[in-house]
Parts: sequence; structure tokens; C-alpha cells
Amino acid sequence: MTQKFDFHVTATDGAARTGAIHTPRGEIRTPAFMPVGTAATVKAMLPENVRATGADILLGNTYHLMLRPTAERVDRLGGLHRFMNWDRPILTDSGGFQVMSLAALRKLTEEGVRFKSHIDGSSHFLTPERSMEIQRLLGSDIVMCFDECPALPATDAEVAKSMQLSMRWAQRSRDAFGDRPGHALFGIQQGGVTRELREESAVALRAIGFDGYAIGGLAVGEGQEAMFGVLDYAPGMLPEDKPRYLMGVGKPDDIVGAVERGVDMMDCVLPSRSGRTGQAFTRRGVVNLRNARHMDDPRPLDEDCTCPACRSYSRAYLHHVLRSQEIIASMLLTWHNLHYYQELMAGLRGAISEGNLSGFVGAFHAQRAEGDIEPL
Amino acid sequence: MTQKFDFHVTATDGAARTGAIHTPRGEIRTPAFMPVGTAATVKAMLPENVRATGADILLGNTYHLMLRPTAERVDRLGGLHRFMNWDRPILTDSGGFQVMSLAALRKLTEEGVRFKSHIDGSSHFLTPERSMEIQRLLGSDIVMCFDECPALPATDAEVAKSMQLSMRWAQRSRDAFGDRPGHALFGIQQGGVTRELREESAVALRAIGFDGYAIGGLAVGEGQEAMFGVLDYAPGMLPEDKPRYLMGVGKPDDIVGAVERGVDMMDCVLPSRSGRTGQAFTRRGVVNLRNARHMDDPRPLDEDCTCPACRSYSRAYLHHVLRSQEIIASMLLTWHNLHYYQELMAGLRGAISEGNLSGFVGAFHAQRAEGDIEPL
Ligand SMILES: [Zn+2]
Ligand SMILES: [Zn+2]
Repeated sequence: MTQKFDFHVTATDGAARTGAIHTPRGEIRTPAFMPVGTAATVKAMLPENVRATGADILLGNTYHLMLRPTAERVDRLGGLHRFMNWDRPILTDSGGFQVMSLAALRKLTEEGVRFKSHIDGSSHFLTPERSMEIQRLLGSDIVMCFDECPALPATDAEVAKSMQLSMRWAQRSRDAFGDRPGHALFGIQQGGVTRELREESAVALRAIGFDGYAIGGLAVGEGQEAMFGVLDYAPGMLPEDKPRYLMGVGKPDDIVGAVERGVDMMDCVLPSRSGRTGQAFTRRGVVNLRNARHMDDPRPLDEDCTCPACRSYSRAYLHHVLRSQEIIASMLLTWHNLHYYQELMAGLRGAISEGNLSGFVGAFHAQRAEGDIEPL
Repeated sequence: MTQKFDFHVTATDGAARTGAIHTPRGEIRTPAFMPVGTAATVKAMLPENVRATGADILLGNTYHLMLRPTAERVDRLGGLHRFMNWDRPILTDSGGFQVMSLAALRKLTEEGVRFKSHIDGSSHFLTPERSMEIQRLLGSDIVMCFDECPALPATDAEVAKSMQLSMRWAQRSRDAFGDRPGHALFGIQQGGVTRELREESAVALRAIGFDGYAIGGLAVGEGQEAMFGVLDYAPGMLPEDKPRYLMGVGKPDDIVGAVERGVDMMDCVLPSRSGRTGQAFTRRGVVNLRNARHMDDPRPLDEDCTCPACRSYSRAYLHHVLRSQEIIASMLLTWHNLHYYQELMAGLRGAISEGNLSGFVGAFHAQRAEGDIEPL
């Protein structure tokens, strides 16, 4: 196992690439999907089972963890890996995005963001320096710069002003992060859907220099077409020899489109959150297992899937435990969704390696277009 | 694997016995604790993990299953074992007890009980014959007679009248059950805490003849001392060569006392329900993991326990996920509690085999008296 953090592309197909990030805690095969473990748990899953779905890395949320159980407590308890029983890589976000979406009484200044906890109303002040400290206390392998993402809708001037603040914070994050062998700091490109602002942001980040580059400020309601529009050029503005991480994406077809456009890493709550509400992602599209059509259906959710939900249970059972609000419904459907996502990533990696990405993507869309199996 | 249902005692120690029930679906080592899988799931557990704790048999609730997903639907889907992915023995209760505790607008007659579903208000009529039919449709391995348990407090005359009705229903259950090789029908002794009524009930059941005998109407609020008072004589009234099942019991010390008094089988929601509220059963007594004293405690819940919750997580983590209302808290603590219960049963079986039950029970009480480990 390497003691430093590095990234190698082993094959490309158009703008898409496959390879691996090496870290002291293990390899991350790219393109990679990172399940979200907000509060030190991927909801409804044991970490060994998340690993069994094929996940190489998890995402933890700085905002949630700083409030409860607190970064200092996690540090005293041996770090986030030991705390949550996951010894492979962990990426933590900076807390900035979730302060803006979850906290109360936010006050943004050049220095940072003052806010009140949504849990207990306590006061906090998050700055680039404090975000770096929290992510270090958590023991994160991939640390994200503290940034600011403007609330939509926003004018070009507002997006520009916010991006420029984020670039100053990126420099402060870089300075505060220091030199931590085996750990990586990622910069975050901002600039909304405006090409010039994305370029300005990329130039600023490249001048500072990071171990990886995220594309931020997308998947915030702009729609897939606008997002793909940005992804047609934004990855190319970032260094080719570093991983590119598209934050908070997405649905399976978002992921496929992002990989086609040169993205290496993604994260999203969708597979786990949807699992808890009965939405299953399958190669034939989304199946809503709460629907009464499944009540008497003895067939598996997806007969080609090897996850426990599909191998050992009928649609009728999954429907029953959802309707009965049983915890096993969340357990099985989250497992299936994470399994499906990781299988999709493995398929994308294999197709890029073989130079057959367009064939793979064509089959992906064709199978979804067929839709779910007919009712019995 | 045997094709018939039989029971053999292999060792005794005082009134206590150990042995095994053989069924076409596998062996049930006795004394046995049966986890409760009310609505076709042991809450927060996958069935393979319930098995891994050492469970040989699960209990299913006829009342819940008849309302949702319905016995006819379970039958069409291949029976309860396939439906819930548990291929070992299942015991189902008769529905009688839970109609009385959960359903609305109950009307009791000689024929049966008319009631409205607590889920959707639909009307149902449960009789001995219908209960036998439902349990057959579910595919239950051990079927319980349909009986009636009077609401407490009740006069001796009320208890007697109720018991006599239950004995007439026992005969009707026996007649309706018919001859089903490999499946067992258990009679249920009633009679409250009155020795003469217990004797009258036992005589009636023995005259009908069953594959096993339950002791009903206990653990309904009478207290441990009164329950043990009944258990000092009730098991001895039942055939020695058939399993004796104490319904709805109980806390670990209830179980130990019942086994000492000759009980072979028990079931209780306590380990799973308590797991969901943060109460852990340990050899040092009950530990409430919601308590703030665990917030910074890096030690396992029970350092001698080999369950996943104790092997891989700190008390601080369990406290954190409980406070954060994360599903993994229910998953880990239910697993621990079921593991603890099954380890207790294995210890009791081993001690009876070795003729050392009093030594085992002495150590059990001594360790509980020590209490939980000191706070750090
Ligand atoms: Zn599946
Ligand atoms: Zn344990």
C-alpha cells in the first residue's frame, strides 16, 4: 500500500477516463461513486455491507459531524475511520454547502459563516481554517476546501462575487491544510453555468495547486441539460493528471453523462435516501415498490441483480415491508440501490478500459427505455 | 433430516431439561429462545443474521400476518418461510392474544372473536377453525391452538370461565388441524395463577392430546414472583415427553427461572424492542446506551461479547447513533440483544448437560449483581 496520495489514468475513451487513486488506506477505482455516510453511518447499512457492494470510499459530512458528535470527540475516539468502523478512504466535505442549506441564522462575512445548529441552536463559526481543522480531527483522507455556493436563482454578478470569495477561501484552505503526506486537499471550481466564471475559477485553483479538483455548484436545481452543458467544458479546464470530482451527483443517467464528460468521482444521497422511501434504481429504470402492482408479484426486483434484496426476496415481500414501515425495507432497498450504483460504476470502468463506452452507454439507455417488466 | 416432529430430552438437572425438537425444517435445541418476527421480519435484522446469533426457530404473529399481507397472499407466494427468507422452523401464535390487545371493537362469543383491524378498520372473525386455516396457509411448523386470555384484573370465576372456553376451543383447534405430518399443534394451558384451574386445564389438554404444551396467561403483568409460583407446579402437570412452551417470556432472569422450572421454549419481543430504544442486555445487567455517561466511552458495550456491535464499535458510537436516530443503532443493538439471549440459552443448555445448572445460575446472578463497568 502506497504511503502517498496519487492518481493514475490507465485508459481513456473520448473525454472519459478510468484509473485509480492510491491512498495509504487503499485504492479508489475511478470513475468512483462514493456513498454518503452523513452522521458516521451510511443510513440502514453496516459498513462491511457497503464495502460488499463495491464501494472504495465513503463521504462524511463535516457540518453534521462537527455538531454531533463533534470533531474533537471523534478525534479523542481515534478518528472517524475507527469510530464508524470503516478503514478505507473517507472524503469529507467542507461544511460550507450544508451550512447554507440546513443551518439557521447564517451570517456570511469575508472571514467565514456564523450560524446556529439545526439540532440544538448552539452557535458556531465556520471558516476555511476551522474547516481544515475539523477535517483533520476527523481524520479525513480527502479534504475539501471551504467554499460558498450562492442560493439560486442568482445573477451573474452574484455568482461571480461568490466564486471570487470561494477562491480566496481556497487559498486560505490551502495555507491552513499545510503538508500532510498521504492526505489530499481538493479545490472546488465554482462559477455557476457561466463559462467565463468557470474558467476564472479554474485558473485561480490551478495557480494555488491541489491534489484534486471538484466541480461545485452543480446539481443544485439547474437541470440535467444545463449541468451537462457545463460538464462539456468544465472538466477540461482542470488538470488532466488530477482526479475530478463532481459533487452531489446524481441519478444514474447523470452519472453516466458525467463520466462520459471526464468526471472521475461522484457522491449522492440518492441511492440511500431513495431506498428508504421505496424507490429502487434498476437497469430498467426506477421502480416504486410502494406501488400496489407489486403486492402479489413473486418475482425479484431485478432478476439479474445479485444483491440480497433481489436474490432472496420477492417484490411482494419488499412491498409488504415498505407498507408495514419495517426497518428491513430500508436495509434491503438501500443495499440494492448501492449495489446497482457500484455495478454501474464497474460497468463504466470496464467499458472505458475496453474502449467501448459508447456501446455501454447505448445499452444503458436502451434498457432503461424498455421500462420495468410487465405486471403479471 | 427427520420427516416427523419429535422431541427428545437428552439430560435433566432438577426440573430443568435439555434436548432437541426435530422437525423437517431442522432441529430446535432446547431450552430454546424464539425471536419474534411479527410482520414477517425480526425488526432491524436480516434473517441470516438472526440465524447467526444462534436462533433455531422464529415466531410469527397470526394477527398481524392475517391483516397484512394476509394469509392467502402469503400462501400464494409460497408460504411464510419463502416469503421472509427463513427456511428453518417457524412457530405461529393463534392470533387470540393479540386480537385482545390490539384490535378494536372486539366481540367474543362461543364461536370466536369478531373485531376490526387496527390497521384499516376492516372486519374479521377469528375462530379456532379460521386460526388453524390461517396458520396452515402461512406454512407454520408449530401451530398454536386458538385460545382466549382474560383481561386482568379478573376474578377466579372469570378466569375459570375463560379457561373452560379455551379448552373447548382447544378441542375445536385439534379437530380442525387434522393430521399434518411434520407439523405440530400445541395446546395452551390457562387458569391464571390458580393451581386448581391450571390442573383442570392440563387435564383437559392431555385428554385431547397435543404435540407440545404451552403455558399461557403468564407474563401479563402478574409479576415475576407470581409467575415463578405458577411455574413451580404448572410444567409438572404437562406431559414429560412433550415440549413445554412459556409464551411471551421474558427478561433474562425470567428465562433463567423458567428453565430451572422445566420450561423448554420461550419467545419475547424484549431483545428486539429494547434494541430499538437503546436498552442493551448484558451479563452485567441492562445498559442504557442513551445515557450521557457513554458519550466519550471508547470501550465496547460488553468486551466479552462477540457480536458485531461489541466487536467493532465503541459505546460512544452506539450512543451517537442512538441520539442521531440512525437505523444502524437499531440494527446493532438488536443484533447484540439477540446474540446475548442465544448465548444465554446455549449456556443454560450446556449447564444442564453437565449437571451444573445451579453453578451456572449462581454465576449468572452474581455477574448481574456486579452491575455495569465503572464510568471512565
Ligand atoms: Zn438488487
Ligand atoms: Zn454484543
